[in-house]
Parts: sequence; C-alpha cells; structure tokens
Amino acid sequence: VTTQADYAAIVGAANILSPADGLDRYQADGRAAAGKAGCVVRPASPDQVSAVMRLAAARGDRIVVQGANTGLVGAGLPDDSGRQIVLSLDRLDDRIEIDPDNRSATVAAGVRLSALNAAAAEHGLTFPIDLGADPSIGGMIAANTGGARFLRYGDVRRNLMAVEAVLADDQGRIVRFGSALWKDNSGLDLKQLLVGGSGSLGVITAASVALQPLAPNRLTAMAALDDTGHALATLRLLEQSFGGLLTAFEGISGEALSLALRHVPRLRNPFATVPAYALLIELSGGDAVPVDWLEEQLAEVLGQAMETGAVADIVVDRRDGLWAIRHAVPEGLRAAGQVIACDIALRRGDVFAFRQEMRQALAARWPELMLCDFGHVGDGGLHFNMVWPRALGPAPADPRDIVFDAVLARGGSFSAEHGVGPRNAAYYDAHVPAPVRRIAGQVQRVLAPRPIGRVDFGEGEAVRV
Amino acid sequence: VTTQADYAAIVGAANILSPADGLDRYQADGRAAAGKAGCVVRPASPDQVSAVMRLAAARGDRIVVQGANTGLVGAGLPDDSGRQIVLSLDRLDDRIEIDPDNRSATVAAGVRLSALNAAAAEHGLTFPIDLGADPSIGGMIAANTGGARFLRYGDVRRNLMAVEAVLADDQGRIVRFGSALWKDNSGLDLKQLLVGGSGSLGVITAASVALQPLAPNRLTAMAALDDTGHALATLRLLEQSFGGLLTAFEGISGEALSLALRHVPRLRNPFATVPAYALLIELSGGDAVPVDWLEEQLAEVLGQAMETGAVADIVVDRRDGLWAIRHAVPEGLRAAGQVIACDIALRRGDVFAFRQEMRQALAARWPELMLCDFGHVGDGGLHFNMVWPRALGPAPADPRDIVFDAVLARGGSFSAEHGVGPRNAAYYDAHVPAPVRRIAGQVQRVLAPRPIGRVDFGEGEAVRV
Repeated sequence: VTTQADYAAIVGAANILSPADGLDRYQADGRAAAGKAGCVVRPASPDQVSAVMRLAAARGDRIVVQGANTGLVGAGLPDDSGRQIVLSLDRLDDRIEIDPDNRSATVAAGVRLSALNAAAAEHGLTFPIDLGADPSIGGMIAANTGGARFLRYGDVRRNLMAVEAVLADDQGRIVRFGSALWKDNSGLDLKQLLVGGSGSLGVITAASVALQPLAPNRLTAMAALDDTGHALATLRLLEQSFGGLLTAFEGISGEALSLALRHVPRLRNPFATVPAYALLIELSGGDAVPVDWLEEQLAEVLGQAMETGAVADIVVDRRDGLWAIRHAVPEGLRAAGQVIACDIALRRGDVFAFRQEMRQALAARWPELMLCDFGHVGDGGLHFNMVWPRALGPAPADPRDIVFDAVLARGGSFSAEHGVGPRNAAYYDAHVPAPVRRIAGQVQRVLAPRPIGRVDFGEGEAVRV
Repeated sequence: VTTQADYAAIVGAANILSPADGLDRYQADGRAAAGKAGCVVRPASPDQVSAVMRLAAARGDRIVVQGANTGLVGAGLPDDSGRQIVLSLDRLDDRIEIDPDNRSATVAAGVRLSALNAAAAEHGLTFPIDLGADPSIGGMIAANTGGARFLRYGDVRRNLMAVEAVLADDQGRIVRFGSALWKDNSGLDLKQLLVGGSGSLGVITAASVALQPLAPNRLTAMAALDDTGHALATLRLLEQSFGGLLTAFEGISGEALSLALRHVPRLRNPFATVPAYALLIELSGGDAVPVDWLEEQLAEVLGQAMETGAVADIVVDRRDGLWAIRHAVPEGLRAAGQVIACDIALRRGDVFAFRQEMRQALAARWPELMLCDFGHVGDGGLHFNMVWPRALGPAPADPRDIVFDAVLARGGSFSAEHGVGPRNAAYYDAHVPAPVRRIAGQVQRVLAPRPIGRVDFGEGEAVRV
C-alpha cells in the first residue's frame, strides 16, 4: 500500500492499479498471460515517467515498461514475484505531430500504430511497418518490429529518426537521441541501442519516425506452387522486373493455408484445390503508376513463370482478399491446436532447403506434428510454426530446440522480428557468443545503470520465464 | 626504427612505410593534406590487424585507421605529432563474396565501392550508395556515407547486415556483430556503434552488406526554376506520383551551376540561360518498367508543374549527361576559389527558407562571398558550400559559425553525411548536449578501452585539427 501511495503522488491515485483492481489486461501479451505485477503505474507525461524512475531508483523497485501488450516474447510482462512494477505507457498518447513537408511524425510512445497512420493518411502518408497487431510506437521500437512489407521498407530501425527516453538511473534523466532529420551523422547514433532493446535499456517516451507516401495503386497476386523448387527464382525475377514497386513477397505452406481455410469461415480458397505452397505477391505504385498497368506488367512476368512451370496457377486481386487469407493464418493455426512458434530468419537462399530438412527431421520424430510455416520469405523471415493437434492433448515435447539448432547451424537467427524477452532468452544465452554478450551487457549498463525490464543482455544467463 | 621493426615482424618489412619512404599518400584525404605519421602499417588479414592492435596496446601506440583516403573530415589522418601510427587497410581487399540469392555481399574492409559494384553487377545487383568518390567499404561504414540516392535507398547503416571488427583492447579481440541476414533481432545491434564511429571505436575488417537489383531503366530530368518557392511541392508531387521509382531529387543553386559550366569545359548548359535554381530528378525501374513509359509518365507529371509555374523549363536525359553536371559541381567550385564547405542537414521543409536566410545574412557581411549550395534536397541534405574568389586572396574570416548556428537553431545537423573528425569536432562539442556526449564517451570506452583514431565522443573536448 505504501508503494502505491508513493507512486500515486506522481501520477494520481486513479492511475495506480493494484492486484485488487484486477490486472489481467496488464499481465498478458499477444502470446499468453504471464506474471503478477505489484501494481501498475500509468504516467501521462515524460516528466511523470522521470519522477517514477527516480522514485523506483530510490526505493529499489524493478520497473517493467509496457506498451500495448501486443508483444510476443514476454518482454513487457512482470515476473511471478508480485513485486515488479508495471510502467504502462497507455496514457502517453496525446502527441501526434505530422510534418508533411519532411515526411515525418513525432509521437508520444503510447500512440498506437493505427492512430499514427490515421493522422498520417490525412497528408497522403503512412508509417510503412505493416503488422497484424496494433502496437504502441514505443513497443514497436523496443521490439524493432518488421512485418509484411519489410522487403520494401525495412523495419522500425530503418524508419526511425529520433528517440526521447527516460534513463534507468538515479535521476531519471530525460535524453533525446537524434532529431527529425533524414540524414544526420553528427556523432554516435545512440538511439540504435534502444531499438530492439526490449524495454531493458530505458523508457522510450517519444519518437520521430520517417513516413512514406501512401501508394494508392495496389495489386496483389497469389501464386500456387506444386513445389518450392522455383520459389526463390520467382522472387528474383520479380525483384529484377519491378524493383521498388514490389512491396511484399510472402509464403504460406499448404498445411497453414488448409488450416486457415478450414477454421476461418469468412475465407474462400482462390484455387480449385489447396496448393503445396502459395506465394502472396504485392505491387504498389503512386498516382502515376495505374493499377491497370501494374496488372498488365505482372501478368506478363508471371506468365513467363507459368510457362517455365515455376508457378502452377495465379489469381490477382485489387482488394484485400488475398491479404485476408495471409493474415488469417495465425487464427487458423490457433483453432487447430497448440501452436509452437519459431520466429526465425535465414539467408534467403536457405529458406526452402531448411523447410525440407526440418520436415524430414520432425516428421520422423513426431508424425502427428503439423508443420504450418508461413511468413516473409522475401526477406528470409519465416514463422516456422508447428501445431500439435488439439485432439491429442498437450504436446509431448518441445521441438523448438531441434529447429533452433538447425537455424544456428545455417547462421540464422532465433528471433527475426519479435525481439528478445523471457520466452526466448534461453536461446539468446545459447546462440549469442559470450564475448558479444559481455559487450552488450556493458553497453546496457551505460544506458541503464539500474536494471530495468526483463532482459539482461550481459554474459550471465538472461532472465527467463 | 624499433617501432617499425616490431610492426614489421607482423606484416613484413615491405608493408611498413616510414617518413623516409614519402607518406604523402597516407597524409591526405578527400579534402586536404594533414598530419605526420610515425609510420604506416599495412596488414593483409584480420589476424594481422589483431596482432597490430595487441602490439599497439602493449607499446602504448596510438593507431589511426585509414581506408581509401576519400574522407572529408580528417578522421583517417594522423595528427601533427609524428608519433601516431597509420593502420592502412588498403591491402585488406582480397575478399568479395556475392550471395545472389540472398542479395548480399561479404567483403573485406579495404575493398573499394567500385570493386564491390563490379562484382555485384555480374549478378544484376548493386550496393546502392551512390557517391562521387570511390571509398573503401570500411571507410563507408565508419563515416556512414549517404550520397545521391539516399532518398530511395538510405545510407550505409540501412544497408548493412554485419560487421567484423578488431577491438582496441589489450587482446585485439576479433568480434562479429550480426550476420548476413535481412532480418535479425536476436539481441542489441552492436554493429550500429561502429557505423559513423569515425574509426574511433575499433578497426572494421569485414562487413556483410545488402544489395539491390540493378535498375536497368533509368531516366533523368533537369528542371529549371525561376525561384525555389515551389521546389518542395514539386518533390512531394513526384513522391506521390512515383513512390519507389523516384531514386534521386537533387538541387543545384544557379551560382554553383554557373561555376561548373564555366570551369569544366566538357559540360554544356542544357538550358538557354543559367536558371536561378535547378533540380535533378531521377526515375529508375526494373526490366518490367520501360524507359519509354517512365518518360511518358514523367512528362505528364512535370507538365502539371510547368502549367502551374512551379517549373520554368525541363530537359530529359536517358544517359548520364545531367548527372555529369551535378557531379562536376565540386570541381567547378574548387576551380573558382577557396571552398568553405558545410555538410548540413535540415528538415526538408526548412531547406529553402534556410537558404534565403543565409543568403541575406552572409551577403550583408561578405558581399564577395559566392554562395554555391547544392546537394540532396530530397532528403534535407545540403552541401552549403561557399567560395571565396581566388582573385581576392585568402578568405578574411570563417563564415561557418554563422551557418552552423543557424542550422542548430532550426534543429539541423552540422554533419549530414561526412561524419565527425578533427575538422568538425569543435562543432560536435558545441552542438551535441553534454549529457549525450557523456553517454557516447562511456559507450565508446566499452568498445575501445584503449583510445583509437581521432575522435573522442565523450564529454571532454573532442580532438581537433
């Protein structure tokens, strides 16, 4: 009670939530419920965040920063001790300044992606990180989210100009790294350390991000493949043909497509049967790039791919029907059973060989396990998700070690776009070399002399679930 | 002599150069000659670099890393003491591995941009950082070069996948940050610290970079403006019309254009007279985007701009004639007198107002000073260069303080794309807040416990010329 009173003096009693208030909303993220908070503190300004950090330092409280609870690795959730204090930024959402001439926006950290994009759209602009969820901007930076248009626009890091943050030190200092400039090389780019920092290097309170012109002319196509032998060649053909007009190149395994079509009634299969593999291709252009012209050019290029047998069938869509199928895949998987998720990245040339290798290794061991991979094959990112059928009860073992060992053997990443948190910290310890972790831990302590958040990037064992 | 013998034991006597050998080549960069080296050490492998760093640590020698000597801020040149040791990476150029499926390259740090692009072109690929000079890849990373196609492809930072470096510590440890992946969020992205680190956080020995498809269909246009009142609107119109097909938007002041046309005999003016301001616009497309079609679309869009009076005249070019004019501007300025260079960045909406403000302020004080700005106005980067006429002898004063104070007042940057070195370190001290410099210095010491290079990013005064 004393704890809460101290923090209430900063943010007001109405903005402190205790376990008696029911904290379910603050103890679950996009993947699952986890942890028990001592209380939830909801500041409404960077100055209040600073005061909270000063108080936490004086009291020795551990702060866990939380955005919109859409993360997937648990980095924004408290541990089970009941002592950690959740610093929710959901009230820090009052600032959205669009600079249309500069094509940039400066926003408070609690602003949602959808709110930023609504404001940007009034000026014909967009923040081009395309995600299934609706995270806060601060959370997007802390996780360095990627998404479905990475191939064209990159991740948050590539579209970030400046960060305002409160440091985890005795004074709760407010710092600003960078400014709303496209080009700036006036010193070390310290904001990069907060990107992908899992909320464990400081509290991001605001950011300036680069915006892109909305591409009003958009065309999607789905290609059915009998096998994936020519998928990479199709990607390279499209890149060589369309360059910056190619804005997505996604893959969906036949198994994942089947589960989506079976369990999500609003979908319909665009093909006569479910193909072995499907590619989702998107072209986008500005006002001077008519969609009719895009369709003619795409038909010609994919016509070549059909003639060579690389592609078995093609459907084209000027609306969002094909994207709806792609976005419904996670829902389909969840409906079918227990999802065992691996957010991996490989060199693009390894993606399809890796799939084959894993299908053999896993089918031999667990024939019932459904391999339902899908994702951003155009950038080497793969949601190598597996589903254990609901009818069979809980999964008997965790196949992820096999998957991640194979990823590591190919020089891949155990976290392509979800960041590092308690749910995958064991893989961080196992996959990142000790000398690199040692340096990371030292850098983390420069920005956060007092521990904050859930991840210790140092050479010791990272915090785990 | 003892010094040289110790280093010769690592790299061989033939790869040590002493002042008696004539070190002019190693004591000048893209801007000017400066400094006196104790000797030049030319290792041929990361292991040799590591041994050199161990020896330097044991002897207390200060190492200055040098690439291809195309830098502009003096970060790769020794000081005047005659005691600093230049570590030249010009022999570290034996590794260029292109992965066409992944669209990436892994190269030794001494490889030149031109050599990388020649190798990439064999696979229809390019490293899209377009520069007037031919730097080494290591130097490009240390400076985070930008260039003329930043608007479309960004800077080195945005196209960098991994860095191998030798740290400035007692052991000369070799570390690798990142891997050849497009997407990777498996921990803090420590390679970012070496980007724009001016060779003062470690010795970059190799890197993996992302490549882009060559855009074979390319069209440039130059637009003559009577005034710059509609230049920004023209940029926004082109962005909204062409999106990712717009690959450059450069500006040239009439004064800069005049000097280029006067002093570079191979050029000819594409217009009847020299306009008050000229825009260079480039569209690029893949195989499915014919140049005829690009020209039709561009004619229509720029036709709108002519009708509204935003643009006075337009010429179109399918070859490199217009780029030749743009690239010859620095040569024209040097021929006309003493160039006083400012590599600044502003928010895009501020660029043209800033020019007007500076023209008034500077003309009032030094009427003879020629204001010859040019550069990357599409990304807010401006080479705000001034020329003091040769006939008048040396410039009587340094107008840069006036320029940089005005840049700072607008939240701009004193170094858009040339990085930080002895030549502009005083502006680093003056423009970067002390708390940020304090953190930067601490981070620098984590990676480089022993000082290396010419820049101290810490809170003390940075090293100066």
